[in-house]
Amino acid sequence: MAYDSNNIFARILRGEAPCIKVCENESTLAIMDVMPQADGHVLVLPKAPAEQIYDLPVEAAAAAIAMVQQVAAAVRAAIAPEGLLIAQFNGAAAGQTVPHVHFHVIPRQEGEQLRPHAREMADMAKLEAIAQRIRAAL
Amino acid sequence: MAYDSNNIFARILRGEAPCIKVCENESTLAIMDVMPQADGHVLVLPKAPAEQIYDLPVEAAAAAIAMVQQVAAAVRAAIAPEGLLIAQFNGAAAGQTVPHVHFHVIPRQEGEQLRPHAREMADMAKLEAIAQRIRAAL
Repeated sequence: MAYDSNNIFARILRGEAPCIKVCENESTLAIMDVMPQADGHVLVLPKAPAEQIYDLPVEAAAAAIAMVQQVAAAVRAAIAPEGLLIAQFNGAAAGQTVPHVHFHVIPRQEGEQLRPHAREMADMAKLEAIAQRIRAAL
Repeated sequence: MAYDSNNIFARILRGEAPCIKVCENESTLAIMDVMPQADGHVLVLPKAPAEQIYDLPVEAAAAAIAMVQQVAAAVRAAIAPEGLLIAQFNGAAAGQTVPHVHFHVIPRQEGEQLRPHAREMADMAKLEAIAQRIRAAL
């Protein structure tokens, strides 16, 4: 499918829409999920204009997983979750809601259900406070 | 935590336990999940002795995500699922059942629940038939 360059992540990557940034390099951007499934839920976005994992250049995937590792370590240090889920959804049937490839980094606690995906907007001040803790642990 | 070199994936990687192989290179092995959550569920195992994403050398993660991409494309071609989930669990609280880092590649169909994780053993002849279709699409 043709890449939709007006999707929200494309707009964030172009600086046309706001985000709470965690970290960034030339090929990848990590931001707080504004509808977090758990506190400390971060999204890692390759900058390449790819809708799904199939469309992503191999170098972009390598850069993305490297940032996933950096973010995972920082989330672990900042939030101290019991577990950490890394997930990447391709297609609506897999839970994809934005047509730009992205990796979820989600803290998990034993016996605690995840909040629904892409449902409820977080309090931005609380999200920024969590982002500050994660950035400090990078 | 110290790596447990007797976990089942370590034994598979040493050739001490059987598996249904999908593909392999010098740093990564892809095998059928013997307790699949959906038909076509493949596991991608870095060969590096790492328990969680935090412990995995960055080069091993890059090689693993490259194989995830190859396997994802082959699963899509072979199974034609509506969606594809890629997941990686760190810690029991996140659903990790084997203490060796691994990526799940799981076909998804709209409205179809995943079968429980690490619960019910598949029929090996059926699993081998699916593996043959995925290998043929690599």
